[in-house]
Amino acid sequence: MTGPEHKCGVVGIAAAYDVVSALQRSLMIIQHRGQESAGISVFDGSRIRTVKDNGLVQTALDHDSLADLRGCIGIGHVMYSTSGPQSVIDAQPFTVSSSFGSVAMSQNGDIVNYADLRKHYLSEGMSLLTDSDTELITNILVRHLAESKDPVRALKATVSETEASYALTVLINGRLFGIRDPYGLRPLCIGKLQEGHIIVSESAAIDALDGTFVRDVKPGEIVEITADDIISHGGPTDLKQKAHCMFEWVYFARPDSVIDGREVYDVRKRIGEILARESGIDVDIVIPIPDSGRAHAIGYSIQSNTPYEEGFMKNRFAERTFILPNQEDREAAVSTKMNPIRSTVEGKRLLIVDDSIVRGTTLKKLISMLREVGAKEVHVCVGSPPVIAPCYYGVDMKSRDQFIANKHSIDEICRIIGADSLNYISIDGLVEAIGKPKNELCLACVNAEYPTRIPGEKERFQSILNARFG
Amino acid sequence: MTGPEHKCGVVGIAAAYDVVSALQRSLMIIQHRGQESAGISVFDGSRIRTVKDNGLVQTALDHDSLADLRGCIGIGHVMYSTSGPQSVIDAQPFTVSSSFGSVAMSQNGDIVNYADLRKHYLSEGMSLLTDSDTELITNILVRHLAESKDPVRALKATVSETEASYALTVLINGRLFGIRDPYGLRPLCIGKLQEGHIIVSESAAIDALDGTFVRDVKPGEIVEITADDIISHGGPTDLKQKAHCMFEWVYFARPDSVIDGREVYDVRKRIGEILARESGIDVDIVIPIPDSGRAHAIGYSIQSNTPYEEGFMKNRFAERTFILPNQEDREAAVSTKMNPIRSTVEGKRLLIVDDSIVRGTTLKKLISMLREVGAKEVHVCVGSPPVIAPCYYGVDMKSRDQFIANKHSIDEICRIIGADSLNYISIDGLVEAIGKPKNELCLACVNAEYPTRIPGEKERFQSILNARFG
Amino acid sequence: MTGPEHKCGVVGIAAAYDVVSALQRSLMIIQHRGQESAGISVFDGSRIRTVKDNGLVQTALDHDSLADLRGCIGIGHVMYSTSGPQSVIDAQPFTVSSSFGSVAMSQNGDIVNYADLRKHYLSEGMSLLTDSDTELITNILVRHLAESKDPVRALKATVSETEASYALTVLINGRLFGIRDPYGLRPLCIGKLQEGHIIVSESAAIDALDGTFVRDVKPGEIVEITADDIISHGGPTDLKQKAHCMFEWVYFARPDSVIDGREVYDVRKRIGEILARESGIDVDIVIPIPDSGRAHAIGYSIQSNTPYEEGFMKNRFAERTFILPNQEDREAAVSTKMNPIRSTVEGKRLLIVDDSIVRGTTLKKLISMLREVGAKEVHVCVGSPPVIAPCYYGVDMKSRDQFIANKHSIDEICRIIGADSLNYISIDGLVEAIGKPKNELCLACVNAEYPTRIPGEKERFQSILNARFG
Amino acid sequence: MTGPEHKCGVVGIAAAYDVVSALQRSLMIIQHRGQESAGISVFDGSRIRTVKDNGLVQTALDHDSLADLRGCIGIGHVMYSTSGPQSVIDAQPFTVSSSFGSVAMSQNGDIVNYADLRKHYLSEGMSLLTDSDTELITNILVRHLAESKDPVRALKATVSETEASYALTVLINGRLFGIRDPYGLRPLCIGKLQEGHIIVSESAAIDALDGTFVRDVKPGEIVEITADDIISHGGPTDLKQKAHCMFEWVYFARPDSVIDGREVYDVRKRIGEILARESGIDVDIVIPIPDSGRAHAIGYSIQSNTPYEEGFMKNRFAERTFILPNQEDREAAVSTKMNPIRSTVEGKRLLIVDDSIVRGTTLKKLISMLREVGAKEVHVCVGSPPVIAPCYYGVDMKSRDQFIANKHSIDEICRIIGADSLNYISIDGLVEAIGKPKNELCLACVNAEYPTRIPGEKERFQSILNARFG
Repeated sequence: MTGPEHKCGVVGIAAAYDVVSALQRSLMIIQHRGQESAGISVFDGSRIRTVKDNGLVQTALDHDSLADLRGCIGIGHVMYSTSGPQSVIDAQPFTVSSSFGSVAMSQNGDIVNYADLRKHYLSEGMSLLTDSDTELITNILVRHLAESKDPVRALKATVSETEASYALTVLINGRLFGIRDPYGLRPLCIGKLQEGHIIVSESAAIDALDGTFVRDVKPGEIVEITADDIISHGGPTDLKQKAHCMFEWVYFARPDSVIDGREVYDVRKRIGEILARESGIDVDIVIPIPDSGRAHAIGYSIQSNTPYEEGFMKNRFAERTFILPNQEDREAAVSTKMNPIRSTVEGKRLLIVDDSIVRGTTLKKLISMLREVGAKEVHVCVGSPPVIAPCYYGVDMKSRDQFIANKHSIDEICRIIGADSLNYISIDGLVEAIGKPKNELCLACVNAEYPTRIPGEKERFQSILNARFG
Repeated sequence: MTGPEHKCGVVGIAAAYDVVSALQRSLMIIQHRGQESAGISVFDGSRIRTVKDNGLVQTALDHDSLADLRGCIGIGHVMYSTSGPQSVIDAQPFTVSSSFGSVAMSQNGDIVNYADLRKHYLSEGMSLLTDSDTELITNILVRHLAESKDPVRALKATVSETEASYALTVLINGRLFGIRDPYGLRPLCIGKLQEGHIIVSESAAIDALDGTFVRDVKPGEIVEITADDIISHGGPTDLKQKAHCMFEWVYFARPDSVIDGREVYDVRKRIGEILARESGIDVDIVIPIPDSGRAHAIGYSIQSNTPYEEGFMKNRFAERTFILPNQEDREAAVSTKMNPIRSTVEGKRLLIVDDSIVRGTTLKKLISMLREVGAKEVHVCVGSPPVIAPCYYGVDMKSRDQFIANKHSIDEICRIIGADSLNYISIDGLVEAIGKPKNELCLACVNAEYPTRIPGEKERFQSILNARFG
Repeated sequence: MTGPEHKCGVVGIAAAYDVVSALQRSLMIIQHRGQESAGISVFDGSRIRTVKDNGLVQTALDHDSLADLRGCIGIGHVMYSTSGPQSVIDAQPFTVSSSFGSVAMSQNGDIVNYADLRKHYLSEGMSLLTDSDTELITNILVRHLAESKDPVRALKATVSETEASYALTVLINGRLFGIRDPYGLRPLCIGKLQEGHIIVSESAAIDALDGTFVRDVKPGEIVEITADDIISHGGPTDLKQKAHCMFEWVYFARPDSVIDGREVYDVRKRIGEILARESGIDVDIVIPIPDSGRAHAIGYSIQSNTPYEEGFMKNRFAERTFILPNQEDREAAVSTKMNPIRSTVEGKRLLIVDDSIVRGTTLKKLISMLREVGAKEVHVCVGSPPVIAPCYYGVDMKSRDQFIANKHSIDEICRIIGADSLNYISIDGLVEAIGKPKNELCLACVNAEYPTRIPGEKERFQSILNARFG
Repeated sequence: MTGPEHKCGVVGIAAAYDVVSALQRSLMIIQHRGQESAGISVFDGSRIRTVKDNGLVQTALDHDSLADLRGCIGIGHVMYSTSGPQSVIDAQPFTVSSSFGSVAMSQNGDIVNYADLRKHYLSEGMSLLTDSDTELITNILVRHLAESKDPVRALKATVSETEASYALTVLINGRLFGIRDPYGLRPLCIGKLQEGHIIVSESAAIDALDGTFVRDVKPGEIVEITADDIISHGGPTDLKQKAHCMFEWVYFARPDSVIDGREVYDVRKRIGEILARESGIDVDIVIPIPDSGRAHAIGYSIQSNTPYEEGFMKNRFAERTFILPNQEDREAAVSTKMNPIRSTVEGKRLLIVDDSIVRGTTLKKLISMLREVGAKEVHVCVGSPPVIAPCYYGVDMKSRDQFIANKHSIDEICRIIGADSLNYISIDGLVEAIGKPKNELCLACVNAEYPTRIPGEKERFQSILNARFG
């Protein structure tokens, strides 16, 4: 994957024992969803206490910082940030005092009507510390709590005002709720632990705690967990057509997670199989772009009966890019991250399977590296259709200008990246691989059909089409 | 001084140039008012940006942390905390977004009706991050701003709800206000800088910036400063009887500051003179408890024609006490802070002048140290009357139990601390030294007469009197 | 791989331009050889300046810390430490002033006669700051430099006293030398850069700098590089029989590195092929233990015509283990690191290919995790023979007690780890896979035949044999 | 005092209990001798362990960093550095392993023949990490230890090679030695503690530990202390004429310390008295430059029967100067440190007593500040004669160019600093105040007569005289 970045993971655990360590471990499991900051809030019997900091879970939530945190019910968060290092005040869970006691919230998603909501509530005298939509939602929730004195009613009132996408875990004093937006855009599932329950972005965290997957939170549902029970408080009345984000399966989620009934690894392998069926290039070996492209490549290899090999060594120590003083250094940074394995590549006709192409710049460099060590042919298969439209639901691809497929035809892209052939999976092929009805998926980034109203989006898209095709 | 600790200092500067460096320097000048955290907020033309952190100004606001802060108008704060190391979220200025733009606030004081205000606003749906009264006032201000759309009216509405004591500097987008409570409990004054103006807790900061003292902010007054002007917006309609805190002159403020027309050094020297007149002990030399007792001792020395000498060496590197593993170490810590100078003390009849006695424990240790190096007699004069009642206006003496004068007669205290004689200044003597009408001073801690209503205070005080005197 | 940890990587670069950034990047490429500390020394025209710190290259050698370092010739080091967090004084390069100017040294290896050398030189009046063998060698070199005034002669004299294993890069003022021990135990190779040369532990670093591999440093050779030239100064006269460490290919080195003529990935794939030939288990799929076991499994898959699948998700954020408060937490830590992929595993007869077994504890846990998600059979193939003897040449397996193969037969190990079958590659199979004459390899850890004299080793080994077999 | 900075303080304690806390406290007492770094070494029964870091004792040796340090015998050090922030490797004690076990050393002073010694030993094959003379002496000591196997003989051999000035505490395994140079240039004294002994730079540390002063270490003496005993091992045979640094009494040492029999406060007060006798200016009040000038001013006040007042408020939070972006800011920095007290100064004829003048720049600024607040006359008395010659014995006044008295007559200096009159104490007056024979004092900085040979010094001085007086 050489493109979009995802944002945030949430978790909540209620148990018969102190849950701080379990929250910490589950955040490490979903760390891939956000590496900018991490936090844990627990209810200690009288109030909610929060520890959060910038950095990975290992650093932000290390043994010392958690030493005094104790509680049998709590929530956690890992954050991805699009705008560089943040103040720790932006980290989540976001925790406040209210007339109803302490409230803490973790969110994954993007509130589509954030600007309108913010403007409205500021005009009503609300003050906000940050630009975070989580702070805004928390403050709205607190207002509804002051009115209704009832957590469930307050939550329902809050989400009714809030337009997609969100997966929330919310702690209101000693009660823990999990909430998923009415479209089911972002994942959220429930697990049974020994003497406890967990609500979390990805099921892999349930496995890591030796728990059992129970079910996904339903789109629009408000679920409450205790050490003993799972209580569904139903959802808002205006339930929408489901629209699960297809990119969770293609790239975001861990391969070992099961999302809305479909295991991510299996979907990716089927993507590879369908790519083999749809494109059918004759090559000597299939290689992945590590790490996310492996399952795709294995599927392709098995379906096409072409040997699978590792063609790149990925440097796990080079995750974060340095601030590099000059252009020469910046180009060298790509070589620091990936290096071809000569014995795999030399003299071979290769097929690379990548999960997606957004800009295409890294892929271009990788192909040139393969040619330098003697690849005879380099063909590319892509596990998702061309990305042409921005995402407003929590994926960091907001600027249309970055999409290579918006400016160039597939043939042009093939030439630009220097491949011998380039095949994207079809939209229908992707839908088949996911194994869900097409109308239950959000495919907006590849077909510009958004499940929610996006103010001005239709006009922008039309003007782009006009510009390109007259 | 061996007792109360003060809290917080505020500043605001508007000028024709970048004020960050001037704010930083002025905070260093009032650093004695709070060493727990420090912060600066400036308006950069479009919004308010804040840098704040735990620690001294030198550390919290060092060159690196201020590198990107620029603005011609801004406020600052140093905080004293009674409850140990705080989260940086408690540091000030407290800065929020509102319907009216950015708002930042620095406060020195203690809101007497904080609990009631908090309860009221939480019940109206407000959410609060901290237990800080500054956050609460800021949020109340933002509500009033949303209603009236007028900073001055919103400020008036806010302070009308807020009962003593406070000295505030407030930044509302690019406008800077200084506000003092209607009693004038905490100091706040205005200075003219080259092409600018400053509002600050103590006039010494004006000197340090090579500025000119203009006047004190009047009790209850709202003053606005710009680079060119000082605009008085008047105060709330319910102006109270003045009640300046006498401890600012006795102990809190810098000797070189002038507060409400009286220079602190001069007040202290007159306290010493009056002590000499009132007590008239015959001794060989007068020595101060450094650093705060020097002016008192000099006054005593001059009035009584007794030589002034330095009798203690104070270790300026031992300000903060270590976490010490055992009792032996803790006692040794006092010796780390102060050491008698033998040639001054040996064989002499000494008079120590201290500014106040709260608990008496440190003074007891100091007297025993003097006797160990050969003092013949040790007499004590105290520059403030016996402290018997708690302060609700921003001085850290809230617990009645800590006051030795509440449990013991002066003779008993003299025996407890091991002195040959003990004389406190009279209340009238103190008033004379300050040089203001008695009814314009807050003397609550020495006579239990509070300028504001303190819920339940009268009853508590009566029951104490009953317990002591039947 | 579930066992031995390797230690240290070295690099040296001479070029026509500032080499700091290239040193930093090359250390990131060999970061897997040591994550405890990192350092860079460059000659700035008059003296050697060193920056080093604990932590990964990204942290220890970040942009700020290197800001003032400049030089066209320099060396670097990454360190693995067996004894937890070290003082930064132990980090390398080790840099000193001498009669001959500045000397800096980076080392990978273990000096067998360290204790004797240390004792000897201390008795001659040497003082040592640390227990590091690098400090000792540097000080010995400085003595020889003072005598001979000739860097090459001094280096030869130094290595003559020093018994295996070592790969060194040494900076003597502006001259840069690479030295490999006479057995060739640890790797060291030479590359050509644009207007420069590099000496480095692994060839992958040459690729990352867009350089060209030139050749390995010969066992016992002293090589000097400049921006323009590679000069061989020959080696010590007593050249030994080659003894390349087989574990470099099996586990330590990056798959994309070429060591003494054999690419690591290719050796591992051949190990997999030979394992398939030697063991020939009939299973449904082959899965690796990621990341190091992938090439082995691919080789097995291709040779046995069994599908290759990913069976575990490895959490790249869980590298370092937390200090965990209780046993329950510690066991959970393994689940944090690895999670089975259900669709791959469920109902399948699996073959795991791991590179080596030292203790067997992690493998046991992994097998039980596979069974929990429904594996029908779990067979194990191991890419190296049973480890039975300690390493004295730089691999962290010094304690004989840790080797499960020293206490149990293969059948017993199979039962202990809970596998359905267990097959190790034969020693001859491993030799064939590496593709070098058996007598040019160090196989001491699997056959107890050490290339150097190890004081007391023969007796210890005999007593163990006696204990086990009578 | 507006001039020279001193360097370093040393301590050693042997007791029947753990001495870490006592070492830490005693370093806080002598913190004024060096604020750059701090360190403690203790012998734990088998080896010496050292904790040291940059910063004040409170930071560098805080509770956490000392948590694991335990031992009944140990040494400590505080360092002043002339060359800005140092690597922690330069911090002391300097600790090494040797043939004789562990050796740690703390030093106060400057080795006059450092360059020659360094050159000699490097040529013999020694390697050095730093430019610190302490590292060199330690390494020389280790060489002698390896030869003689006798700590006392090795120490004697070492100091025989080492030319003034030094006060050392040395730990050789479990034995603790204190050594003072043959001239007695830097102070070092011995105290009795409860079940222990202490050797330390200043006697104030003995007081702070509730100990009893025993005696000064004699010039050239090697003293050993244990929990029970003080053992004198005599000194080198070539005992020199005593030459105690006069600046210790005038400025460096704490007023409460007694050095070579004379209390510092008392010497300073007598300096003030003699100044009054010698100069006899008629003024209204005498004010000190705080903090170091207070005793001088008190002496003047008493002798001349002129009232003593505090004329400046010194900001104890402004010790370290900021890196200030522009000239305007840098000038403002002086005002941040000192502010005149108006009621003291206005309309008065003042006499300032300062301890010394080196450059005169700060004094000039202070006098102008006094005039700005209305001083009628400002006269200056200086407690030491004009400084005209560099110090080679540990005081940071090495560059002749910085001395204003080297370029200007006293009248000129008076005009430059803007005073109404300027009087220095005479050399004989200073000698009288110190109360020791003139030939037992080092007065080199005021009369250019050095107790040791300084290569080239005589010629340099002559050429300066020639230049000035033809």
